[in-house]
Amino acid sequence: MSDMNEIREGEVVAEGLPEPGDAALVFIGRIRTPWTDRSACPRQGDPDGPICRLELAPPWERALVGLDAHETLEVFYWLHRSRRDLLVQRRKKDGLLRGTFSLRSPVRPNPIGTSIARLVGIEGSVVLVRGLDCLDGTPLIDLKPERRR
Amino acid sequence: MSDMNEIREGEVVAEGLPEPGDAALVFIGRIRTPWTDRSACPRQGDPDGPICRLELAPPWERALVGLDAHETLEVFYWLHRSRRDLLVQRRKKDGLLRGTFSLRSPVRPNPIGTSIARLVGIEGSVVLVRGLDCLDGTPLIDLKPERRR
Repeated sequence: MSDMNEIREGEVVAEGLPEPGDAALVFIGRIRTPWTDRSACPRQGDPDGPICRLELAPPWERALVGLDAHETLEVFYWLHRSRRDLLVQRRKKDGLLRGTFSLRSPVRPNPIGTSIARLVGIEGSVVLVRGLDCLDGTPLIDLKPERRR
Repeated sequence: MSDMNEIREGEVVAEGLPEPGDAALVFIGRIRTPWTDRSACPRQGDPDGPICRLELAPPWERALVGLDAHETLEVFYWLHRSRRDLLVQRRKKDGLLRGTFSLRSPVRPNPIGTSIARLVGIEGSVVLVRGLDCLDGTPLIDLKPERRR
């Protein structure tokens, strides 16, 4: 993901940021996807995309009870290779400079990614889904039924 | 939020969990809402609900550039008063026992809350929105334009 962490012309880095430490995350598992290189990842998950695996670590398997009643899940993961200090970024689609919070870029102070995924099946501590867009090996931090509107 | 952290009959606590520490969050600001008690919070944000304030800490104001082009935002916050060790919980609406990941309960290993909020305005480092459901003083961890479907 080095290409994502390079600074482009006009981008603004926050200076003198403290080390993050206001709250701590626990990785509850790992996500296995077909994409081992950032450039190969789709820009957004496709509900008809390949099956990906959410591999839960102990003791979280038990927290899956009842998940099979839901067709669509919201998956949260940690974009562990993203830089976190950009205030202004160059937007990919048109090269315009925009504030980090006006983009859905993975480069942000807390690089949490989310995807809406279709549940395909549950095998023990592994949840099979379609619709992800992240790198193979991405740390999993949460999953829940999709928001009702 | 003590009522939320009490164990109810049949609920299952994970034992011997390590202290979370796989990744660290930085709080980028605070959320001001009218709700100072958990029992007063709406169950889900209402797009016509009261105006709430996302108060950004320095240096993040600059990262708001371009946000005003969006009508609907996704707001991420840290549910700092939630317990994190429940595997099985009693669902509020019907009292049934369900795994944590099959619920949108704030009690989860990484208590990250999200809301879809309507942008009302931006005043310097403060973003005014409607549609939140969280307690006054909740730490803000991210905001971004709503996902396009």
